[in-house]
Amino acid sequence: MSKPTPISGFPEWTPAQRMIEQFVLDRIRATFELYGFAPIETRSVEPLDQLLRKGETSKEVYVLRRLHADQEGATGDDALGLHFDLTVPFARYVLENAGKLQFPFRRYQIQKAWRGERPQEGRYREFLQADIDIVDRDTLPAHYEAEMPLVVGDALRSLPIPPVRIQVNNRKVCEGFYRGIGLTDPEAALRAVDKLDKIGPAKVAELLAETAGASEAQAKACLALAEISAPDGSFADAVRALGVSHPLLDEGIAELTEVVETAAAHSPGLCVADLRIARGLDYYTGTVYETQMIGYERFGSICSGGRYDNLVSAGGSTYPGVGISIGVSRLLGLLFGAGELSISRGVPTCVLVAVTNEHERPASNKIAEALRSRGIPTEVSPSAAKFGKQIRYAERRGIPYVWFPGVEGATDEVKDIRSGEQVPAAAGEWTPPRADLKPLIS
Amino acid sequence: MSKPTPISGFPEWTPAQRMIEQFVLDRIRATFELYGFAPIETRSVEPLDQLLRKGETSKEVYVLRRLHADQEGATGDDALGLHFDLTVPFARYVLENAGKLQFPFRRYQIQKAWRGERPQEGRYREFLQADIDIVDRDTLPAHYEAEMPLVVGDALRSLPIPPVRIQVNNRKVCEGFYRGIGLTDPEAALRAVDKLDKIGPAKVAELLAETAGASEAQAKACLALAEISAPDGSFADAVRALGVSHPLLDEGIAELTEVVETAAAHSPGLCVADLRIARGLDYYTGTVYETQMIGYERFGSICSGGRYDNLVSAGGSTYPGVGISIGVSRLLGLLFGAGELSISRGVPTCVLVAVTNEHERPASNKIAEALRSRGIPTEVSPSAAKFGKQIRYAERRGIPYVWFPGVEGATDEVKDIRSGEQVPAAAGEWTPPRADLKPLIS
Repeated sequence: MSKPTPISGFPEWTPAQRMIEQFVLDRIRATFELYGFAPIETRSVEPLDQLLRKGETSKEVYVLRRLHADQEGATGDDALGLHFDLTVPFARYVLENAGKLQFPFRRYQIQKAWRGERPQEGRYREFLQADIDIVDRDTLPAHYEAEMPLVVGDALRSLPIPPVRIQVNNRKVCEGFYRGIGLTDPEAALRAVDKLDKIGPAKVAELLAETAGASEAQAKACLALAEISAPDGSFADAVRALGVSHPLLDEGIAELTEVVETAAAHSPGLCVADLRIARGLDYYTGTVYETQMIGYERFGSICSGGRYDNLVSAGGSTYPGVGISIGVSRLLGLLFGAGELSISRGVPTCVLVAVTNEHERPASNKIAEALRSRGIPTEVSPSAAKFGKQIRYAERRGIPYVWFPGVEGATDEVKDIRSGEQVPAAAGEWTPPRADLKPLIS
Repeated sequence: MSKPTPISGFPEWTPAQRMIEQFVLDRIRATFELYGFAPIETRSVEPLDQLLRKGETSKEVYVLRRLHADQEGATGDDALGLHFDLTVPFARYVLENAGKLQFPFRRYQIQKAWRGERPQEGRYREFLQADIDIVDRDTLPAHYEAEMPLVVGDALRSLPIPPVRIQVNNRKVCEGFYRGIGLTDPEAALRAVDKLDKIGPAKVAELLAETAGASEAQAKACLALAEISAPDGSFADAVRALGVSHPLLDEGIAELTEVVETAAAHSPGLCVADLRIARGLDYYTGTVYETQMIGYERFGSICSGGRYDNLVSAGGSTYPGVGISIGVSRLLGLLFGAGELSISRGVPTCVLVAVTNEHERPASNKIAEALRSRGIPTEVSPSAAKFGKQIRYAERRGIPYVWFPGVEGATDEVKDIRSGEQVPAAAGEWTPPRADLKPLIS
């Protein structure tokens, strides 16, 4: 077999990086659970027609075919595709299990998703996301929109990553404002404004004229709205100063005020109302979120979401929801790429038990057993080579301690191979310093 | 949207079942790490030609195609398929990263795999496996074959499942024995004996004659070997009593003796030498493992593996390995089906903070924040409905405590809704009994 090569867009981490990823996932999960979100996983596949309900994403779907299935199966009604996010499968899960679930239903879901799009830095074909959503039957109180930033704020703050800023907007503010100035196609206007960062205000003004039929004054007003940004409720004054009024605008301002003020009470500086945030996807109807790492704004949003009222409905019931998704692979891929994350060793092992000679391996096994039974990750040396070689085995992996079984009734000894200090020890009692027990991430 | 229905072979658990699964995965992972295995994940896809190297499994592979890719891409040289186990991707990962890894390399890998085969109880098209493997460059000491049962024995014993028995055999024992009695196609003989449980000894004897050219006496000897089973080194006496000798047989007996004796020293009764265990796959060359739950033998093996010498080689190096795989979905699916696993509540939440009226929601948020900061999973009530309704919200989810914020300077109170007991409490100090903090599994 010739040496295999990586497949573009399908990242694989080293064991050390995977340990960092697990640490990150454990922290995220712990925070989600502290807020009472229950876990689910959905299958990786959905019926293709369900995945294609949103035309936008159809080009990105991976379709599955069993190698020996007849061709019918691959394109017929029962065709399956890999999910491209966790929201669409979650919506389906809610409908499928509506009779068994308690509403409002708070769930988290940490899983891979797949998109066939062109890979770029931090943008993969296979990637891991960590989502929370709250859905209710028929109505969903707006206070849940204010809860999302608290949860991801706490989750992201628990990670060894730069501090974040969550940018929040509300579709109702934009739509109400656009209607208030007389635009009749607010979605077209939203799509145009969404391109602000990419193409700049002049081009957005042109686009507003072309696609949303905006006059020069209307385009100017849209751009003025998009420029508003404030870390607290003062954004509302800035909006009102533009002199536009519409009932939907008032509703949006009230909801957005609750989000930024709840966040400010919880952790000042976490959220800003940023009225240029639009999110491309059609299904958002209220609050929308994006998240930047401070100092790494060039990476774009690492955590996004929003409120959706019309994603899930069946049998006369609708299930409005709000959710937010941490792009774990994206986040880690970018930080690994920037050399920003490291770990103190590449194995979980804290102690290597040396083997005096192969006949004495059972004695080393016993020592390892005693250490493990007290929670100390331990390996037994691969061979009864000279101790120098056994120590090098530990050194190469960053294992901090080597344990020498006592021979002929002598006491065992344990050596910190970093300092060279060697002391008598008993496997039933010795405990490493807390900082050495598990690999440390920095 | 009409109500969606499940897809056969792609199981989905309820939130409560997923909590049990996570508990199980955490325990397995903790044990793997105690033994110094480092984690990796591989991408879900492999080049199709790599997946098809083993003809046996070709029928089971799911092939991927991007929806809008030209047909070439779907069947050409760059076609991708979903991996059907974790061993083949791991072998590829070792080759690809050989220059960066330390050998012997101990890794664990907990991931989904996919097979297009017909679903049955406990056998899925999408399933989760938890694997450990140790690979070395060029040679791998046999003592690693003795280590595998210790690890999975500890891992499985840490789970809320019935006790297990690991059945061990060694390919060298069979091959040496078959050669020793004059059979020239030991693989054919092994395949025939592998069917013993399914078709019985008479049919196996016929098959041995047909496919391995065995005489009546040879077939009888093969069956006699397959009947040997012992919890310790005494199996060797039983083999020797059959009067066959061959160098490979001696080697196999010595290795198998080390495995069962190491296991007996670690936990008596965990392992038995069972000479009928063959494992279908061609790539095993030494020890092979299967695992039964005692009292649930009808479920078949829930944890299997073995030693392989020829799976990975490139550039003049070979990488012999030994590994074992816990079938997590299989295990849980069967136990869920048998109603053998339950959890004390369907949400992580320990405390629901009531809301007196919507204007006081920030006060309830503050209480929740204080409880969470001390590790107590807490939700805030969805509405300021009558307290009876708020308590029912907790009851339906199994949340044990409801917290009532004090109004107008009064002290907060917390109610255990199971006993009805309600006591004054401060969010900065109150702690639930340890048994209530997290959902309990039984």
